[in-house]
Amino acid sequence: PSDNSNVGAYEEVCYEHQEVLENIELIQSQIEALNERGADEILQIEIKYNTIREPYYLKRAKLIEKIPHFWITVLLSHPTIGCLINEKDEDVLSYLESIDVREYEDIKSGYRITFKFSENPYLGNKLIQKDVIIKYNDDGNVISTKCTRIDWKEGMDVTAIENTVTTGSKRRREDHYKSFFSWFSSQDHVLNGDDIGDVIKDDIFPNPLQYYINTAEAEIEDDEDVV
Amino acid sequence: PSDNSNVGAYEEVCYEHQEVLENIELIQSQIEALNERGADEILQIEIKYNTIREPYYLKRAKLIEKIPHFWITVLLSHPTIGCLINEKDEDVLSYLESIDVREYEDIKSGYRITFKFSENPYLGNKLIQKDVIIKYNDDGNVISTKCTRIDWKEGMDVTAIENTVTTGSKRRREDHYKSFFSWFSSQDHVLNGDDIGDVIKDDIFPNPLQYYINTAEAEIEDDEDVV
Ligand SMILES: [Ca+2]
Ligand SMILES: [Ca+2]
Ligand SMILES: [Mg+2]
Ligand SMILES: [Mg+2]
Repeated sequence: PSDNSNVGAYEEVCYEHQEVLENIELIQSQIEALNERGADEILQIEIKYNTIREPYYLKRAKLIEKIPHFWITVLLSHPTIGCLINEKDEDVLSYLESIDVREYEDIKSGYRITFKFSENPYLGNKLIQKDVIIKYNDDGNVISTKCTRIDWKEGMDVTAIENTVTTGSKRRREDHYKSFFSWFSSQDHVLNGDDIGDVIKDDIFPNPLQYYINTAEAEIEDDEDVV
Repeated sequence: PSDNSNVGAYEEVCYEHQEVLENIELIQSQIEALNERGADEILQIEIKYNTIREPYYLKRAKLIEKIPHFWITVLLSHPTIGCLINEKDEDVLSYLESIDVREYEDIKSGYRITFKFSENPYLGNKLIQKDVIIKYNDDGNVISTKCTRIDWKEGMDVTAIENTVTTGSKRRREDHYKSFFSWFSSQDHVLNGDDIGDVIKDDIFPNPLQYYINTAEAEIEDDEDVV
């Protein structure tokens, strides 16, 4: 404050209420301790249910693998992710056999997304993983990532190819030049403003069927250029 | 789909994978049942901690009442709410003695905000309450509200007065014509795009001190026109 004329008044008020404020602070810190205890109990329940859900997700994964193009269909028909997949990505993702999301054991420190591919002309490694790692400090959360180095086969790196715009695609609103795989292989956790990891973890993986069922027909009609 | 040439192929694929899809659906519904069980357990913990926190909030409220202009200071210095309080509102809110937020017993169906005022030239009723009520249906949540009819003293209804812009106020970025009390007395749960109820419930009430401490000095310097 540039104006010092009220400092006396301020100190007086401060003095008068200092003890009360200190007592409020004390109670506030007790409330915060309770909040932390509560958050911890909730976390324990989330951990418990992650464990309970695991065999169901595994069973689901085995069934999904029997349906060709299940995951590419889901990804393309998702309102956010669908728009981030360009023509070349689509070719690669047509070999996607499974998507798995695994939260770290304590949940709050991050999660790992695993894409498993069948034998294909693009990828040397069948497993591509991206970890989204959350660290807490005084200023809030810091998100970092760790990703598998994608071993693109000779001349097949779709993130390096300058993609041409495809017109006439009814399904997508626009075609992006940036590859979906540029998210997978970069330190960014955001692609074109969308938090891809969180969308996959919180929306797609918990219930992919909702995006498959309504669009399976349209996708199959368009299948010629996927295969 | 306008093109029927692939209907045969679609039905074939459907038939081939129908049983698998039905099994996936079954597992998906089991996963959802687990999610609901988990959400329910979490809710029980939140209810438990609401009960545990209650006496602390009561004790805090009693102490806060000893500090004149505590709540008006907090509200004015809050980044969202501060901008929604015009000069006339400020006069009324200078008589605000306490803010209380009480979630409904089951938490998920809503909450009630209570503003308690000391004797003042504006309000006939010392308690003003607004309930934010959440109902769940197939399309998602529907939010409705219920509010105390504010008994403005003769000629003192600040929501009816066309407020003039005050220039030279260093504290606020802009002065709004719409009264903060128009949120309190309307069916809307949003004022100028901000979800006031949620801000009070989730940010201000849990820790008002964070907004009081840094700004108490500036507020006291500016106090002449509050009192
Ligand atoms: Ca296609
Ligand atoms: Ca003032
Ligand atoms: Mg598949
Ligand atoms: Mg007070």
